[in-house]
Amino acid sequence: MPKTIDVTELVLRDAHQSLMATRMAMEDMIPACADIDQAGYWSVECWGGATFDACIRFLNEDPWERLRQFRKLLPNSRLQMLLRGQNLLGYRHYEDTVVDRFVDKAAENGMDVFRVFDALNDIRNLRRAVAAVRRTGKHAQGTICYTISPLHTPGDFVEMAEKLLDLGCDSICIKDMAALLKPQPAYEIVKGIKDTCGQDVRVHVHVHATTGVTLVSLMKAIEAGADCVDTAISSLSLGPGHNPTESLVEMLEGTGFETKLDKSRLIRLKKYFAGIRPRYKEFLSNITGVETEIFDSQIPGGMLSNMESQLKQQGAGDRMDEVLLEVPRVRADAGFPPLVTPSSQIVGTQAVFNVMMGRYHVLTGEFADLMLGYYGETIGPRDRHLVELAHKQTGKPPINGRPADLLKPEWHELRDATVELAGSNGSDEDVLTYAMFPKVAPKFFATRDQGPRNLGKDPGTQPAAAPVAAPVQAPAAANGKGPARTPITYDVKLNGKTHKVTVAPAP
Amino acid sequence: MPKTIDVTELVLRDAHQSLMATRMAMEDMIPACADIDQAGYWSVECWGGATFDACIRFLNEDPWERLRQFRKLLPNSRLQMLLRGQNLLGYRHYEDTVVDRFVDKAAENGMDVFRVFDALNDIRNLRRAVAAVRRTGKHAQGTICYTISPLHTPGDFVEMAEKLLDLGCDSICIKDMAALLKPQPAYEIVKGIKDTCGQDVRVHVHVHATTGVTLVSLMKAIEAGADCVDTAISSLSLGPGHNPTESLVEMLEGTGFETKLDKSRLIRLKKYFAGIRPRYKEFLSNITGVETEIFDSQIPGGMLSNMESQLKQQGAGDRMDEVLLEVPRVRADAGFPPLVTPSSQIVGTQAVFNVMMGRYHVLTGEFADLMLGYYGETIGPRDRHLVELAHKQTGKPPINGRPADLLKPEWHELRDATVELAGSNGSDEDVLTYAMFPKVAPKFFATRDQGPRNLGKDPGTQPAAAPVAAPVQAPAAANGKGPARTPITYDVKLNGKTHKVTVAPAP
Repeated sequence: MPKTIDVTELVLRDAHQSLMATRMAMEDMIPACADIDQAGYWSVECWGGATFDACIRFLNEDPWERLRQFRKLLPNSRLQMLLRGQNLLGYRHYEDTVVDRFVDKAAENGMDVFRVFDALNDIRNLRRAVAAVRRTGKHAQGTICYTISPLHTPGDFVEMAEKLLDLGCDSICIKDMAALLKPQPAYEIVKGIKDTCGQDVRVHVHVHATTGVTLVSLMKAIEAGADCVDTAISSLSLGPGHNPTESLVEMLEGTGFETKLDKSRLIRLKKYFAGIRPRYKEFLSNITGVETEIFDSQIPGGMLSNMESQLKQQGAGDRMDEVLLEVPRVRADAGFPPLVTPSSQIVGTQAVFNVMMGRYHVLTGEFADLMLGYYGETIGPRDRHLVELAHKQTGKPPINGRPADLLKPEWHELRDATVELAGSNGSDEDVLTYAMFPKVAPKFFATRDQGPRNLGKDPGTQPAAAPVAAPVQAPAAANGKGPARTPITYDVKLNGKTHKVTVAPAP
Repeated sequence: MPKTIDVTELVLRDAHQSLMATRMAMEDMIPACADIDQAGYWSVECWGGATFDACIRFLNEDPWERLRQFRKLLPNSRLQMLLRGQNLLGYRHYEDTVVDRFVDKAAENGMDVFRVFDALNDIRNLRRAVAAVRRTGKHAQGTICYTISPLHTPGDFVEMAEKLLDLGCDSICIKDMAALLKPQPAYEIVKGIKDTCGQDVRVHVHVHATTGVTLVSLMKAIEAGADCVDTAISSLSLGPGHNPTESLVEMLEGTGFETKLDKSRLIRLKKYFAGIRPRYKEFLSNITGVETEIFDSQIPGGMLSNMESQLKQQGAGDRMDEVLLEVPRVRADAGFPPLVTPSSQIVGTQAVFNVMMGRYHVLTGEFADLMLGYYGETIGPRDRHLVELAHKQTGKPPINGRPADLLKPEWHELRDATVELAGSNGSDEDVLTYAMFPKVAPKFFATRDQGPRNLGKDPGTQPAAAPVAAPVQAPAAANGKGPARTPITYDVKLNGKTHKVTVAPAP
């Protein structure tokens, strides 16, 4: 009897986050839900920080309403979310009771599986969120952010798994957000966890496809005992996204492992999302092949494009190579954090500052906080000189404790601020939305009643805005009766690009 | 000490054949040759039937001259070609001495490794070509076309390997032209060959990437003892092409296997071909993701697009689904041949005929020949009723012997025909060019002195033809002094698409 390998489908969250800037509207997901619900997935990832953000920032969708719709449309499925531990879905640490309330509300609205991670792999930043999930009776998945550095060994990740299980996690996830997990370490880490923590400990493996090697890593993880792997339906897979679900199914044939997925449903889903994808053409990632340079720079694709745009804004688009060399150095000085939201942004921005203004002449506030311990502990020691500099610059003392222990209760303050906002309905969900994205939420509350905005475009239709044309010269009437018969050249702006167009009247 | 895994680079032949309709001009390959030559490949595949055909049909390039250039530009590399056994680079069986001459001339012009296959896996169709290669002292690689059917087992392929070694082949290649080779059979076949024929028998594995599973298959083949695998530099990989060379290199880290490839050369090659690829945009395959449906239909991508265009020509583009169901049936009736040139075309065209005109109401001449044994033996029995029908329709008897045994010496006839042609230079190479492509060669000889034609286009330039604009209405002069001040709408044709453009004179 082949062992069953469970599958988490990513198409409703990480797939479109990675491939089309998180822009997929709920409207375009609804028709796929019946097939997803019946295909036999272990879980359906459908919620997280970026989808929440995109909902209120771009799509005028209430993310809580999206969750409730998923709950109705996927009655047989475990709904899964990605939760940034003490950061929840935001970019700062929240006070513990906010964490509790967020988890309660997510569970109440339909969430089943909480994949909880911390960007620094600091277990203390996961503790409260995991405890909150356990209290709801839902599935708490403790997550290890995979990275590579001179310090990280498979043994370190196994040790972290032990600590996560001590917190009471129901399963362990190895999360490889930058496609750095090669087959051999995949095998060693999964085997290490199973051998050390017990064969019955559920191990999930999440990998991206960017470097082209990670379907092989999933194979080796499965051989080592992994119970569940993450994939995305093929028409929204590969590039900076994930491995194709259908390829995983086929790959296992005859190996002693099998998925229980319904292939005919997968083909229907593939065709459906193949039709949706071109609607989001303007948001599509321009990475379509593989990028193995990531193994050397350790810079994930999303971080790269962020840094490029930062450099261009400062008129220094040509200094990218220097920045690429600077990032690993800054990361080493910071004690080798994994590069994932928000540590990727913090390290990347500081590297840009170093190149533009001289090394550490200016520390960003976030980088100073990172050096002073306000994001938590890193695997390696942080550069002492820089910790001192950060202290001098900010006046804050370095800390060793759990960052959230310094926070005062903030729920009532958040509630008071929220109910003041036009369009807020006073629900705990609205308070949490405001807490996560205080700059974006007010505008969203104000426009919420206009309903969702779908940014996907029918590739067959013309752009909504009428093209603007500015004539280079006004046509001269040669004979006083009509327009000139000679061709006239116009600058025509079409879809944002200016074209020279020569217009001649029909003869 | 890790075992060294050799690599054959496909970028100069199968990669652009699979991804850009074989259109890459020699001019665009030359700048890459120094890096290819120094990167550490075991061999460089650079010649075959489709590249030869494209040279004379589209690029006005002498394929023999291309080979001589490769020989000069890649002095440290083994040059490798794909040879269709008794078919050489054409679509029919050639008489034995033509086979001998072709191999002699290819070797003389610089070829080192001859990968020899037969579409039906009929060993008798490989015998003469392998013997010819051995006589030149070059490397004869006996090739197994991998396919799946109710009859094919790993044991059958191992048995074929034994027969190929009996012919004196220097190595064995498992050729998976349709990306059907899954990890488990890859492991079993390679291990079977090693266990049965000896660990020192060199086994090469060639796979396409179309189904998304075959990098895993290469991993399992390597674990089973494969010595050399085929890949293509990443910027010309994936889709209907091959697995990325760089991903193979990275995948092996720490596994006990390693390539000896120079990563910095690979990155340079990647960047170079990333710049070349957009020049051939109009020829690029529109398959960019993975296609796992192939496992059920067993129809390779190239064959699919052929059948689609055949159906459309007959105004039956909507009957593709029927054809897809018919192909496996026709293939079964024909004794389960692998589907590869020319058997893929023969089976596919007959399936189209069956759908359009009723099942086997009309047999194509080629399908009749296949049923009568004129292409060789198939693994399964051929439908008796159809053999009888083919006999009646063509008047030809069924045969059991080696097809080429029926052929009379033809070299002098081919030579006489060639020297008659304007522009032919009377060389054996020209005779062979004419022999392979008698319909295309005359025109090529006549235009050869005009030199190569590069069909790649600089993506930065505008289309050569000026945009055509047809005004919807002539602007009326409102005051007799100048053009109307009201905006006028034109239909503007730009890059082949018509847009409504409203033009207003500047105020």
